[in-house]
Amino acid sequence: MALDLVKRPDALAEAMAEAARLVEAQLDALIPATEAAEARLIDAMRYATLGGGKRLRAFLVMETAKLFTVNTTCAARVAAAVEMLHAYSLVHDDLPAMDDDDLRRGKPSCHKAFDEATAILAGDALQTRAFEVLAEEDTHADAEARCELVTSFAYAAGARGMVGGQMIDMLAEGKTLSGPEITRLQALKTGRLIQFSAEAGAILGRAPQAQRHFIAAYGRELGGAFQIYDDVLDEEGDAAALGKTAGKDAAQGKATMVSILGLERARAQAEHLADQAAAHLESFGERADLLRQLAKFTVTRKS
Amino acid sequence: MALDLVKRPDALAEAMAEAARLVEAQLDALIPATEAAEARLIDAMRYATLGGGKRLRAFLVMETAKLFTVNTTCAARVAAAVEMLHAYSLVHDDLPAMDDDDLRRGKPSCHKAFDEATAILAGDALQTRAFEVLAEEDTHADAEARCELVTSFAYAAGARGMVGGQMIDMLAEGKTLSGPEITRLQALKTGRLIQFSAEAGAILGRAPQAQRHFIAAYGRELGGAFQIYDDVLDEEGDAAALGKTAGKDAAQGKATMVSILGLERARAQAEHLADQAAAHLESFGERADLLRQLAKFTVTRKS
Repeated sequence: MALDLVKRPDALAEAMAEAARLVEAQLDALIPATEAAEARLIDAMRYATLGGGKRLRAFLVMETAKLFTVNTTCAARVAAAVEMLHAYSLVHDDLPAMDDDDLRRGKPSCHKAFDEATAILAGDALQTRAFEVLAEEDTHADAEARCELVTSFAYAAGARGMVGGQMIDMLAEGKTLSGPEITRLQALKTGRLIQFSAEAGAILGRAPQAQRHFIAAYGRELGGAFQIYDDVLDEEGDAAALGKTAGKDAAQGKATMVSILGLERARAQAEHLADQAAAHLESFGERADLLRQLAKFTVTRKS
Repeated sequence: MALDLVKRPDALAEAMAEAARLVEAQLDALIPATEAAEARLIDAMRYATLGGGKRLRAFLVMETAKLFTVNTTCAARVAAAVEMLHAYSLVHDDLPAMDDDDLRRGKPSCHKAFDEATAILAGDALQTRAFEVLAEEDTHADAEARCELVTSFAYAAGARGMVGGQMIDMLAEGKTLSGPEITRLQALKTGRLIQFSAEAGAILGRAPQAQRHFIAAYGRELGGAFQIYDDVLDEEGDAAALGKTAGKDAAQGKATMVSILGLERARAQAEHLADQAAAHLESFGERADLLRQLAKFTVTRKS
């Protein structure tokens, strides 16, 4: 089975650390500090993006890009754009009017470190910058590829993706969602951006449709596994390991896959999806080993 | 002088109404209502964009596009994207943590009609959709042109443009800004997007650099005139005509060009910039008459 291919258990950790290092350097360069009057905005954007997170999405971009021999800097730029978008969504989700969370990645959330107005604006400007980076010439020599990055990214990010999912999540408080409803919510809220992160490498590499199809399927199942396992962690995790408030969904009366399936069946479902994700990579042979290991990591991580 | 070219005083009003009709139809089509679980988000996006505003920016896109014989539907799509971005900025600016305004375009602001969380998300998704529309094939056959729209738009919209200007504006409360500081604030907050709206027609039309330079200069001066005249209206206007709270800047202790120059000199400065804007259009002959009339309208409007 695909997940048994793991030969060097530390290889994934090394590769993820390397991707995190590359994306951190890109973010630092793409959001330069300033002395201008709007410095506070830039400071908040840098606070929200730099020095934190697992960089799972960045790693996905970097690693699928390798399958299609994409230039590392181009891939790192797309990875940085994805992390900017992810960071903006966390900044806005943490606002008092939304999930009202004081803690993020083990430090005060953006509106706590700055203020609400600055956090709203920093999130807004991070989204703008993400789109700008994707469309800039340095990201790909072919404008068709850049436009495809922008439209695929927008699909994952907007009303039919991440923001739509967050809306459904807000409306779900105190309601009983069905399994299919939760699955759709999670696909929109987190799945689409994780899927885009995987597909981005194939878009950058101008991969043939068949290969792109497999990568998309991998990203989709991986996203599903990731989100269900997040519910598992939220149920049993502690705030110190998570770097955010644990048990929050249950406290808010939100239905999750754990509340529907129970802890063990939810865990089994996440593992099943991770196996399926890995299976979609068969045609890529050993070159996709780290992506297979990532699938396993997704459902065994502690935070 | 350019502003004396006005021959049919109702031609501008007719053309603006026509542009507003076209962009309204595009917005309606580009943000379709849904029965899905995220319907509330889409409803808020439609509430914030449809049926309101002068559509000054949309008219600028449509009218400069005519100078370069751009297809009307392509121009209307870009105009819709600009209006989406403008609408998102108003939705976020009106939030309690920002300008805390209950009234917008003569009706309850988005967070009043819905709620804060929905307003934040609707603004977020409107920005996403605006970028998506620019990058979609229907906007221009040439992907290079679409990428240029995206990067120019992002420059106008982000930390070096609109959002940066809003940050400076928030920080300006109770401070005494100098004339140059206010000019930069206004250039970022509103000027860049107005300039983009003018330039968009030239980008769509793949205009030669010289022509594009004139259009950009027109847009820049027009944006300056528009914002200074907004300060004039804010000082002397009434809420009924403006469709928003009047005298707000003075009440918040914000420096404006009126507080620095006084009402009459501010008005004169706005008129001077409008004249300069019109002068940049000389090489376009009679075909730019409506754009010249727009410059005059900008500094004579009642709201």
